[in-house]
Amino acid sequence: MKIGIAGLGLIGGSLALALRERHEVTGYDNDERARAAAKADGIRIATGLDELLPADAVLVATPIAAIVPALEQLATRSDGAVLLDTGSLKRAVADYAARAPAGARIVGGHPMAGTTSAGFSAADPSLFRGRAFLLVPTARSDDRAMAVAGAIAREVGATVTVCSAEVHDRAMARLVAGPLAAAAALAVAGAQAEPLLAAAGPGFRDSTRLADTPADLATELLFGIGADTAAAIGSIIEGLTQLRDAVERGDREYARSFLQAARSVRSELS
Amino acid sequence: MKIGIAGLGLIGGSLALALRERHEVTGYDNDERARAAAKADGIRIATGLDELLPADAVLVATPIAAIVPALEQLATRSDGAVLLDTGSLKRAVADYAARAPAGARIVGGHPMAGTTSAGFSAADPSLFRGRAFLLVPTARSDDRAMAVAGAIAREVGATVTVCSAEVHDRAMARLVAGPLAAAAALAVAGAQAEPLLAAAGPGFRDSTRLADTPADLATELLFGIGADTAAAIGSIIEGLTQLRDAVERGDREYARSFLQAARSVRSELS
Repeated sequence: MKIGIAGLGLIGGSLALALRERHEVTGYDNDERARAAAKADGIRIATGLDELLPADAVLVATPIAAIVPALEQLATRSDGAVLLDTGSLKRAVADYAARAPAGARIVGGHPMAGTTSAGFSAADPSLFRGRAFLLVPTARSDDRAMAVAGAIAREVGATVTVCSAEVHDRAMARLVAGPLAAAAALAVAGAQAEPLLAAAGPGFRDSTRLADTPADLATELLFGIGADTAAAIGSIIEGLTQLRDAVERGDREYARSFLQAARSVRSELS
Repeated sequence: MKIGIAGLGLIGGSLALALRERHEVTGYDNDERARAAAKADGIRIATGLDELLPADAVLVATPIAAIVPALEQLATRSDGAVLLDTGSLKRAVADYAARAPAGARIVGGHPMAGTTSAGFSAADPSLFRGRAFLLVPTARSDDRAMAVAGAIAREVGATVTVCSAEVHDRAMARLVAGPLAAAAALAVAGAQAEPLLAAAGPGFRDSTRLADTPADLATELLFGIGADTAAAIGSIIEGLTQLRDAVERGDREYARSFLQAARSVRSELS
């Protein structure tokens, strides 16, 4: 296939590296350094977004706020190309698709693979291997579009799961935005561990790793699905309150059953 | 040195493997399988706790609840041996030391290295390399006892930090108990991500890893320093509440400054 990739950061760069062996891949990024880094790694570079067309598919891997503008620009002249974005929020893409030109083919995509590293320099062709790649059909997704999107996801080594934009965003609030908020709250509370903060072990480091997410991306993730995020944070506060109350009243049985429930959820992760 | 090790789980087993090349190491565990596994790996095994003496040092790496009883048993006949425990809570050890026989030498120790794996089968001589090893002087710690404890900690590759039991336990509430409670609350809230729970990416997996801590150990960690733990969980709830309120009122600036503060705490970790 002829595949264009808009945005050559961690995700777009990794897709380019994973797909270039078997496809004719061309990339573009607004940032000159990203273009230069990708070019130095052998990725063919276009001189503008429009030049990614004509193609069989264009993967839109820009920052979240730029996804719908990029889709809008591409959709008017996509001529059958499947437009597949890779952002972590899907309702805005579904909303745009509903008002996109009738001939456009648009599929929402979300590879579940890492968020705190950034840039082409962190790109890795094996980034998606064994990960989930969520696909969200939109009002502009036909069978062929879904088949092309699914083929690309599987080719980079991911497992495809299809869901609605609503189910996707509600789940992401629990799996991404909530953990991000908790990591930030843990890190801020961790400052009270001084002078022993630097002695923190791997548990604290892992628990707060998401607090390293670049501030712009982190803010988008929290506010992009505001109502879902607020509800997800509310659920976490509720669980913590139950545990704190159990500790205060010395109720080990309650805490133990809560901890067991948590452990059983985790065992479903595989 | 002649070194006894009481408890051959993850920590005691790793200490035995790390120290046996340069010292005469003898281990003991109440559990027959642990003894057999350590023996199969070439660790010399005693027939009882008392048989670890005489020694230059005895490392007490039992489950938390068994530490003070083991110290009590050893202290009456330790004859100058340095008794160094490795539990993650230090106030109980300091309290015991204050009433221990006058001739006993007791130092509180806490290597900051992993908690969710367990058992001798997970033991690894490099477990402590590059990690902090906190040492807490007690009413029964003299200079030689601190020197012996420090030498052992450095020999397994760790960096020594000395602090009081109070500073230690307050910090651990923030670095261990709080993150554990948050991981459990995140996992329970994560169940609401169904049917996409299995699609969780590395962020959610890392954030909830501590929820895999065996329930007995997790309960000890939460209740062993109850007041500190309740305060630490309270700080996390406070941070989450601030973030949720910011999301609800659309206050990106507030959220961004909170996220920046979190990121700067994390940058102090290494």
